[in-house]
Amino acid sequence: MTRLDDVRALDAADPLAGFRNRFALPEGVIYLDGNSLGALPANVPARMDRMIREEWGVDLIRSWNTHDWINAPRRLGAKIARLIGAKPHEVIAGESTSVNIFKALTACLQLAPERSVILSEAGNFPTDAYMMEGLAALSGGRIRQSLVASDAIEAALNTDVAALLLTHTHYKSGRLHDMADLTAKAQQLGIPVIWDLSHSAGALPVELNACHADFAVGCGYKYLNGGPGAPAFLFVAERHHDAIFPVLSGWLGHARPFDFRDDYEPAAGIDRFQCGTPAILGMAALECGLDIMLEADMATIRAKSQALGDLFIELVEDRLEGFDLRSPREAAVRGSQVSIAHENGYAIMQALIASGVIGDFRAPDILRFGFTPLYVGYEDVWTAVDTLATIMRTGEWREDRFNVRAAVT
Amino acid sequence: MTRLDDVRALDAADPLAGFRNRFALPEGVIYLDGNSLGALPANVPARMDRMIREEWGVDLIRSWNTHDWINAPRRLGAKIARLIGAKPHEVIAGESTSVNIFKALTACLQLAPERSVILSEAGNFPTDAYMMEGLAALSGGRIRQSLVASDAIEAALNTDVAALLLTHTHYKSGRLHDMADLTAKAQQLGIPVIWDLSHSAGALPVELNACHADFAVGCGYKYLNGGPGAPAFLFVAERHHDAIFPVLSGWLGHARPFDFRDDYEPAAGIDRFQCGTPAILGMAALECGLDIMLEADMATIRAKSQALGDLFIELVEDRLEGFDLRSPREAAVRGSQVSIAHENGYAIMQALIASGVIGDFRAPDILRFGFTPLYVGYEDVWTAVDTLATIMRTGEWREDRFNVRAAVT
Repeated sequence: MTRLDDVRALDAADPLAGFRNRFALPEGVIYLDGNSLGALPANVPARMDRMIREEWGVDLIRSWNTHDWINAPRRLGAKIARLIGAKPHEVIAGESTSVNIFKALTACLQLAPERSVILSEAGNFPTDAYMMEGLAALSGGRIRQSLVASDAIEAALNTDVAALLLTHTHYKSGRLHDMADLTAKAQQLGIPVIWDLSHSAGALPVELNACHADFAVGCGYKYLNGGPGAPAFLFVAERHHDAIFPVLSGWLGHARPFDFRDDYEPAAGIDRFQCGTPAILGMAALECGLDIMLEADMATIRAKSQALGDLFIELVEDRLEGFDLRSPREAAVRGSQVSIAHENGYAIMQALIASGVIGDFRAPDILRFGFTPLYVGYEDVWTAVDTLATIMRTGEWREDRFNVRAAVT
Repeated sequence: MTRLDDVRALDAADPLAGFRNRFALPEGVIYLDGNSLGALPANVPARMDRMIREEWGVDLIRSWNTHDWINAPRRLGAKIARLIGAKPHEVIAGESTSVNIFKALTACLQLAPERSVILSEAGNFPTDAYMMEGLAALSGGRIRQSLVASDAIEAALNTDVAALLLTHTHYKSGRLHDMADLTAKAQQLGIPVIWDLSHSAGALPVELNACHADFAVGCGYKYLNGGPGAPAFLFVAERHHDAIFPVLSGWLGHARPFDFRDDYEPAAGIDRFQCGTPAILGMAALECGLDIMLEADMATIRAKSQALGDLFIELVEDRLEGFDLRSPREAAVRGSQVSIAHENGYAIMQALIASGVIGDFRAPDILRFGFTPLYVGYEDVWTAVDTLATIMRTGEWREDRFNVRAAVT
């Protein structure tokens, strides 16, 4: 059985321990929700102050050139590319994950124009399915959405499928799909694949090109620590760039946007997947998060992430009763999070948060804990489980104040 | 002929003069490009610092509830509504203008499902036309884009038109369309109208509901002073809310997003037009700009804007040769900007900027000057024309350094 001394020894030997003070976390809080909103990189306030006072305030419109705002989507895209096994010119930062899903789905329809089914996993993060539903509605019946259970995906692949959209790391369970295997099986049938990396990018090694991926999207505000509503990203494999006429064909995807011509001519390469004017304030914060992440080694991050998750599962099973593990026990197929279920999960999570351990709740009964190796240590995991054990022993989660639902849980 | 003393008297009597110090403008700069990127509201740095350090840094994920992040799109939408003659629950802030155009266009297709033409003005700001082109391409030939000259719009209205998309204030000339008249003429033929208010919102009174408008979109970073790449906005007339199934059906437009269900059920009202997670940092900056704007009276803003434009035209015509007026002389049909053309416009504008007067250049030969009444005074206009006269007299614009094109002009 692991003891507190063992856990402290792990922290003392942690090669990533030095990253903890690169983040501004509040005293007395153990933050196990970086998979929902990443912590604040310590360099963001100064960077944002300079961006606002000097770049916006003093240099004003000239900053599009002098501070290279115009290249922020490309520059950040190239940095994200290093985290997901892509080439620098295959990733563009911007918009929301949802909008990028729409871009990727409509691109797939161009690659497989005679096909009618867009396929995803039931119980996936809902925005993926919802974006498919909107596209299907727009098509007036030509395109049909299909959602199948995780273990039925392979059987649902056929030559009528125009796009397979899968979340690499499941938002609720943390279960990983085998990207290389599913990509290959889909492509054998001519199906382009979109990988949603929202819970993968920055959390574990992703090798898009080694897996011969077609498209990927992902989120800037989780493991990339880009701040609330940070710009998302879109990966398009280089081999597809020229073949796709972007449906969201905004002015910044034009070959010469400042010629202000009436006809849309797509820019070369990944630039054509830009649409509107980029959110420059959000880009500045996201770049701070990316720069820290790029200093760390992804294999080291992954090893610690797995060790933190394993430790959490061991301690929960040693010290608690009445919780079901809802994540894979095997670390190799688990992302950087562990979910456990309890029929009183909502109230228990509220009580835990009130005690300074922040995870989140996912309906109907899931307590979800994210382990972000750059700022979470082994003793944090120990303390989190210890706090949860206290809450269960005292029954304080039964208090009324923990049973009132907030707007966002 | 207007003299410097006259101009100073106008500043002394200006009811909006007190707003100048609500903006942080650099010393020695006359900023006549607020129609491209609005100046920095003086309260933004402190607000953003609090947002970052306290809301993101300390309260972390809880801020979606405790700092009401989740309602930012609605709350800012309601504030924008007051500036454009809409009801509070008819406007939602978020995404880019381009993406909001796509939302509005696809909504029109649902209101007029049997029609095949989407109509706009040639020479309009290009993203409007480009977004139409992408949608037409997606339709596989069912939808056709048509761009006609400004004076041919009325003649092009017929019962095959599914959407009329017009920019209220022309980005280059500043010419205003008659919103009430064109809306009525289109609607008589069953055509829903989308008004692009990018160069109108915050610059002049807009009365969407008095004009019985259907849809409108607009930009947060121009006259609303929301910062580079600020969230844009979408107006949908209340009568259309329930009839439209959003095509960009992201999770935040769901009736119960935190139930994480597989099926998309649109939220009631304007909320269904939300898509992805909102850009919270950008929202915080935009709200500062909106709050200042809402303290001013729009009729007073409009009167000063017209007077500034009239003064500029008078001084240019008194003191300069070789420039053609490319904006309406009549203030009633002119937005808050004046464009003048010169064959050496690019180099002249660069020389002007180097002398501390910032306007912008629009290909092929337009020098564009925006007059933002909250922070531009009459003497600023005098000094701008005086500086331009000096540049033309000395010929300094011929220097090599003013003739090298930058990425963004």
